[in-house]
Amino acid sequence: MKTIKFNEFQKKIMEVIKKGAFLTVKDRKEINTMTIGWGSIGVIWGIPIFTVLVRDSRYTHKLIENSDQFTVSIPFKGQFKKELNYCGTYSGRDVDKFEELDLEIINGKKIDTPFIKGNDIHYECEVVYKQDMDKSLLFDQNIKNKFYPSGDYHTVYYGKIIGTYQE
Amino acid sequence: MKTIKFNEFQKKIMEVIKKGAFLTVKDRKEINTMTIGWGSIGVIWGIPIFTVLVRDSRYTHKLIENSDQFTVSIPFKGQFKKELNYCGTYSGRDVDKFEELDLEIINGKKIDTPFIKGNDIHYECEVVYKQDMDKSLLFDQNIKNKFYPSGDYHTVYYGKIIGTYQE
Repeated sequence: MKTIKFNEFQKKIMEVIKKGAFLTVKDRKEINTMTIGWGSIGVIWGIPIFTVLVRDSRYTHKLIENSDQFTVSIPFKGQFKKELNYCGTYSGRDVDKFEELDLEIINGKKIDTPFIKGNDIHYECEVVYKQDMDKSLLFDQNIKNKFYPSGDYHTVYYGKIIGTYQE
Repeated sequence: MKTIKFNEFQKKIMEVIKKGAFLTVKDRKEINTMTIGWGSIGVIWGIPIFTVLVRDSRYTHKLIENSDQFTVSIPFKGQFKKELNYCGTYSGRDVDKFEELDLEIINGKKIDTPFIKGNDIHYECEVVYKQDMDKSLLFDQNIKNKFYPSGDYHTVYYGKIIGTYQE
């Protein structure tokens, strides 16, 4: 058996997600977008699912909890570096990211949540299942120490991919 | 914006996983392999993660709960149709699938759980987090009716991918 670093599609997903993407949420008139560097794509319950994690403390968490929908807009070509850095640093509670960064939106096709214009691929997702992480079940001590020193755990959102678009 | 059915890497994952793969577990001397048609690959906690779901009623569930490790062996070229069908139908509690199907194994490289020989790609995974589904949070009624009419929910296993191999 030959060890390979990743197979082709795993590599693609890892490259894309690790570079950063925009997770956008909207609840009535409130819109926010945040930077995600984590995520997972697959088939669960026989349907395509995009899984994202959002900490309970985030402004995004409040909006997605109410709307149960989200979009993910991914820049394949490394664009939006400054914007992704900003959106990973500041909270939508304190600043209007769209105004600060001149981000333009594209209206959602099947849901009310928009996409961030200028990205290469856009996913439109409806949350079908979600669950707060249970710290007693996270037995990997490295992960615990590195990501949850203050106990600010994630909620895992399983979004049914109802649309995939290229600009 | 142009609607696309899937983007390239989503399509690949969906094709591969939907066709079926072997989820193999081992606890001390007990080995079992089952067919999975669901799964998800991505980056969570900054590491590559393969997510699999196993119902509480499965023989595999008992073994993975004890060992906290699994492998996934995927036939890209459509081989093992008969075997995947068999492993999706019969329980390792009742039959020895390896004997019945003449399945050969390859020993694990970093963990004690083997791979199923003859597949095109093999993932070696250590469970870092797991959580039983909470039925009160599954608000998609279609999914509930279709997959959980008798309340036999899944445990979600988040496996850190510690090795990827080609035969």
